[in-house]
Amino acid sequence: MSYQARGRFITVEGTEGVGKSTNIQFIQALLEDAKIPHIVSREPGGTPLAEEIRNILVVPRDEAMCELSELLLVFAARAQHLKTLIEPALARGAWVLCDRFTDATFAYQGGGRGLSVDKIEQLQSLVQGDLRPDCTLLLDAPVDIGMARAGARGALDRFELEKQVFFEKVRSAYLARANQAPERFNIIDASASLDVVQAGIAKALKSQIDHYHGNDDV
Amino acid sequence: MSYQARGRFITVEGTEGVGKSTNIQFIQALLEDAKIPHIVSREPGGTPLAEEIRNILVVPRDEAMCELSELLLVFAARAQHLKTLIEPALARGAWVLCDRFTDATFAYQGGGRGLSVDKIEQLQSLVQGDLRPDCTLLLDAPVDIGMARAGARGALDRFELEKQVFFEKVRSAYLARANQAPERFNIIDASASLDVVQAGIAKALKSQIDHYHGNDDV
Repeated sequence: MSYQARGRFITVEGTEGVGKSTNIQFIQALLEDAKIPHIVSREPGGTPLAEEIRNILVVPRDEAMCELSELLLVFAARAQHLKTLIEPALARGAWVLCDRFTDATFAYQGGGRGLSVDKIEQLQSLVQGDLRPDCTLLLDAPVDIGMARAGARGALDRFELEKQVFFEKVRSAYLARANQAPERFNIIDASASLDVVQAGIAKALKSQIDHYHGNDDV
Repeated sequence: MSYQARGRFITVEGTEGVGKSTNIQFIQALLEDAKIPHIVSREPGGTPLAEEIRNILVVPRDEAMCELSELLLVFAARAQHLKTLIEPALARGAWVLCDRFTDATFAYQGGGRGLSVDKIEQLQSLVQGDLRPDCTLLLDAPVDIGMARAGARGALDRFELEKQVFFEKVRSAYLARANQAPERFNIIDASASLDVVQAGIAKALKSQIDHYHGNDDV
């Protein structure tokens, strides 16, 4: 491949406790095995400043954060992350593997908080221009399974403190979004055993990885 | 007057060191003398959460903040401030006296940073709908006067650390904006003596205050 080729942008999405961290480590190992240069990041966050913004978003406080302020903070962190980390990495040919991206905004702030798709799309255009993930893995599981796993991890953040009905809306919004863009999304049943989940992930990424090495031309 | 009447929204604008704080205290005294219920606030900030966002905006750090992230943080703080403090106050009939508002965004992020008016107007609509200040006092002075005053106050924040050319652009953008909306703006020469400045402010606010007491009907 040419060293000028743009990297691929892979995002991993899902509600709390569906196993994103474990499976991102698995994907990272796949990319290392395939000798594909890559970075791993997360949203909101990914740079020290964007992590400061994440902190404002996730720490519980007495003052209720209004929905629109939450949405704008998410995109403020994203603008910084894109400009500082993601775009330079993709431009130099590295793959970017990111724990959540704008699909999470449509799911959490759209589905969960009830903000209109129109408002989110407006900010998406403002901040991202035409940039979208090349491939998105949606780890999907019934909400009660994820909530039980997240609850077992200790102190809950401002999102994890939400009730089941919130996460049901988030999950539905994720699934609706995945079904609207099947060419980009792979829905992985995250309630299956880890072996089965990871076999599904490896299969979903195989053509991307083969393409990197030019195997699709063989 | 009717107790249901909406309060008036008065903003005070200007670059660093033009005397906003001193003159806001003066305006506050005018409102107290006139027995007009009011609150005094500032942007970015005005609620504990919005002040957390302000802190991210003003604290100098190694990582360069991208222009778009700065713009979105300003509007995230503004959304929270409007929803939590400004709109409820205006709705109950209190006047809101605010140290900076969206004109500052057009001046600093537009004029200073070079972001397009179009992007700022898009966010203004998203966050404010039709809400605009009723009356804006622009304290205007040559940049070197203001910078000397601000420098004498001690440690400089991330904006105060900018160079003279930045503040020249901010000042020009403020003046251009004021000249586009003379019915809302009062440009006060802040390089004059304090007595003269405050006489100008009192004159600019007289009709508003008289109107509150119905004196314009006499």
